[in-house]
Amino acid sequence: MDGSIYSNYPPPLDPAWEKFLVSTIKDWAIQNGLAVRPHPSFVPEGVDSKGVLATNAPVTLFPSLFPKARFEDAVALQTVYNELYAAITCNEAWLGKVMENLIDVDDFISNLWKVHLAVQKEGYVQTLSLGLFRSDYMIHAPSTSASPSLKQVEFNTISSSFGGLSSLVASLHSELLTSPPGRPISYPPHPLFDSRLPPSNTAVETLSAGLAAAHKAYGVSKSTPPLPLCILFIVQENERNIFDQLALSKQLSNVSKIPVFRVNSSEILDRTFIPEYNAFRPLIYQTHNPSVQFEATTVYLRAFYAPSDYNSPRDWEARTHLERSAAIKCPTVLNQLSGCKKIQQVLAEPAGPDHLSSFLPHKDPELIAKLRETFAPQYDLATEGQGRELALNPETAANHVLKPQREGGGNNIYKKEIPEFLRSIPESEWKRWVLMELIQPPAGPKNIALRSDGEVLRGNVVGELGVYGTILWDNSTGEISHNEQGGWLLRTKGKDVNEGGVAAGFSSLDSILLY
Amino acid sequence: MDGSIYSNYPPPLDPAWEKFLVSTIKDWAIQNGLAVRPHPSFVPEGVDSKGVLATNAPVTLFPSLFPKARFEDAVALQTVYNELYAAITCNEAWLGKVMENLIDVDDFISNLWKVHLAVQKEGYVQTLSLGLFRSDYMIHAPSTSASPSLKQVEFNTISSSFGGLSSLVASLHSELLTSPPGRPISYPPHPLFDSRLPPSNTAVETLSAGLAAAHKAYGVSKSTPPLPLCILFIVQENERNIFDQLALSKQLSNVSKIPVFRVNSSEILDRTFIPEYNAFRPLIYQTHNPSVQFEATTVYLRAFYAPSDYNSPRDWEARTHLERSAAIKCPTVLNQLSGCKKIQQVLAEPAGPDHLSSFLPHKDPELIAKLRETFAPQYDLATEGQGRELALNPETAANHVLKPQREGGGNNIYKKEIPEFLRSIPESEWKRWVLMELIQPPAGPKNIALRSDGEVLRGNVVGELGVYGTILWDNSTGEISHNEQGGWLLRTKGKDVNEGGVAAGFSSLDSILLY
Repeated sequence: MDGSIYSNYPPPLDPAWEKFLVSTIKDWAIQNGLAVRPHPSFVPEGVDSKGVLATNAPVTLFPSLFPKARFEDAVALQTVYNELYAAITCNEAWLGKVMENLIDVDDFISNLWKVHLAVQKEGYVQTLSLGLFRSDYMIHAPSTSASPSLKQVEFNTISSSFGGLSSLVASLHSELLTSPPGRPISYPPHPLFDSRLPPSNTAVETLSAGLAAAHKAYGVSKSTPPLPLCILFIVQENERNIFDQLALSKQLSNVSKIPVFRVNSSEILDRTFIPEYNAFRPLIYQTHNPSVQFEATTVYLRAFYAPSDYNSPRDWEARTHLERSAAIKCPTVLNQLSGCKKIQQVLAEPAGPDHLSSFLPHKDPELIAKLRETFAPQYDLATEGQGRELALNPETAANHVLKPQREGGGNNIYKKEIPEFLRSIPESEWKRWVLMELIQPPAGPKNIALRSDGEVLRGNVVGELGVYGTILWDNSTGEISHNEQGGWLLRTKGKDVNEGGVAAGFSSLDSILLY
Repeated sequence: MDGSIYSNYPPPLDPAWEKFLVSTIKDWAIQNGLAVRPHPSFVPEGVDSKGVLATNAPVTLFPSLFPKARFEDAVALQTVYNELYAAITCNEAWLGKVMENLIDVDDFISNLWKVHLAVQKEGYVQTLSLGLFRSDYMIHAPSTSASPSLKQVEFNTISSSFGGLSSLVASLHSELLTSPPGRPISYPPHPLFDSRLPPSNTAVETLSAGLAAAHKAYGVSKSTPPLPLCILFIVQENERNIFDQLALSKQLSNVSKIPVFRVNSSEILDRTFIPEYNAFRPLIYQTHNPSVQFEATTVYLRAFYAPSDYNSPRDWEARTHLERSAAIKCPTVLNQLSGCKKIQQVLAEPAGPDHLSSFLPHKDPELIAKLRETFAPQYDLATEGQGRELALNPETAANHVLKPQREGGGNNIYKKEIPEFLRSIPESEWKRWVLMELIQPPAGPKNIALRSDGEVLRGNVVGELGVYGTILWDNSTGEISHNEQGGWLLRTKGKDVNEGGVAAGFSSLDSILLY
């Protein structure tokens, strides 16, 4: 990797210029809805009992540099990835076999599987399934000589977030690059700023179009008499990232003219019901107007992705209730499970059956090879073998990360802590974890971030690129009726996490300049 | 006035419905920039030292009802009012004579006048003058039998605010009236909601077009070598209403492609200068980029309108500095002074010279009569006469308000407090004040407001309609090159201000449904 491109990027900012830029960004963010509700560590409990305050989403001051060819690779692979995960979801037997080991040791996976089994026993009434996916990558640049490659961090099959805000960050950076009009001086001059803008970011349009496609595919009301149709967003109470979600519902409502209602996951059983006598099992939503009910064509889950979303048997009951309804789920339980790290690891196995070719029988082998190249080496820990050897040896462990079957970060065990951690838990639980070789991002990138509390942090950074895709398919036939790619996300994290004893890390929304 | 239209408006809301509506509005506001920075009484000092927090602007839950014919009257009169105030500003002799009495007793007026005299002595280099005006009205309905009329509260010639946010409130209410699409149920049903929407609100487009017209009329750079041109927004430090202003600069920048910079009034002398050697006196703005300067074509004042904006001789120096520059002022000192209550009172004098016809010699007398009808009776207190009689008699005072020469409220003396107040100050100062007959708004209107701190208040309300207009004219010839009307504002205030000993009043941004 040629480090020189990072060596003078971003251009230096003197304090007055930084003040101008920060002030412009914090105001732009609120004016344009690039916002989050503030964290309780920033606005203490009691100050804002009605929950009206908002602040800027954490953003970088500059767009980050990203190799053009690798961005194009990621974009080109997205519809293939969409198909792959749809095919995996269709193959309940294969999925079940992979899950088998996990069900023993992982309550969350086990409970999800039980939801599926219960609905399967009764019989699914909806065979259509909607995926709003995001494939996350990092640039792997183990040496300065080799050309940087694209490695997948994870594939998100549920609650793929930040499409709404990410589009706004691309707009923000684009505006800064071109303002004031005619004589842009918001940023200090830099050769890379001449005539370069972040690529178009259609995340909002693409994700909304996926939801709209499901809404349309649902067809007419299954209620007697027919009810008006809507999409339900299933959300967490006190969601701080609400404006990301509202970007999608605004597009659906204002552009596609589709009604959207938000339902807290804890209120599902109070606000929705499935009429006992109706074999189609339509999911009926009781609005705030006692005399008006809608029928949900599609339930879009922005909750229920993590164990912490299930606090009681009632929450599992609510998930089962959605699953057995006629609404198209985004995602179904099986589709959610296909996003487990274990699946990624099985797909990546260098020996044994060629799962990719089985799931994608009509795809060009070259394309499949390209997709396979995005896999980082990863290992099973269920039995004796290479995985356990690498994990237990401190020297080799130093180059790895241990991941559980969860969406989102915060649960991983890194490097030298791996052997000790594994020895601290029963060997029977090792199979819950997957060992993945660490992706080695380029060392050079730097950026400056404006946090949600207004603090400005700077330093070496690592970027994670997410590419969005949507797919609508029939679980019983495998037939695909909608498969699109569009929109991206760059999340940029501070590399120095323990500076001076305090966690100095930051995680910000970013955009990209391709080079 | 037929009170019945108000008797069942707005429709009743049960608590669950109100919760839905409030929650929708508070989120919509942040998503769409209908925002303000929070007041220190809401977010205590120290919590948000970087000033990143924002909250919804105070808004009514429902649009308020407004008589269609009176709205159309106000709209039709705006370009005439624009012309009237441009003509007054052109007539320095007349203006000076009216100000004479005030200059003795009012430091603020006196200092403004001095700025004018100083620049006049040196010679003005810019004859073009821009007005971004707002004429404020209330509905006058003294009895239920008479048809309601339109009475002017004040005519704003400086810092006419809320155009940006008011457009957003019209969008908010329009969206609530039509959502979800196809089956609108955001509001409880009401006959007035069938097919009615707030009238189009083009305040942002109109006000920005006025600024753009001045920018264009300025012509080429007067600097050697020529500099890029910009508009300067002169603003108050820590402006809470910044998103209202940013709506205009966004339009100028993104649509008209005109660079806009914000300058705190306290920084004018540091950030701008007039080259000594240049007889054209261009106003040069030093950007945050040390090597880039712009020349200001237009200075738009969102500060310097109140005595509290002038804290030292340096602030008066800054105002003089702007006034003597070649930049087109919005407004000039003379144009600001034309907005004094005293001018309104002189124009409204029923006896004596017909000022309106003099200032508008080519206007249809019927139109002038219509304009005159918007004047509430108002009186001079400088000498013995009807004004003093009405003010000192508690019985007649009860129907009046005493107003100083200030923009904005908060300085008025009402009703029975007038005689006592006048007797508490030297008689020589009475001429600072104008006595105005109280406008009697209809008694029926009610609304519910969401405050910026999230509190929901309800009750009887009074609405104040503002209509925006812009005019660009030449002070030396009186020639008008741009005269437009467009956009409106409804501010709705709670009528019950002393409920239970606590100020229960609210002042919210609102929109209108015409009936």
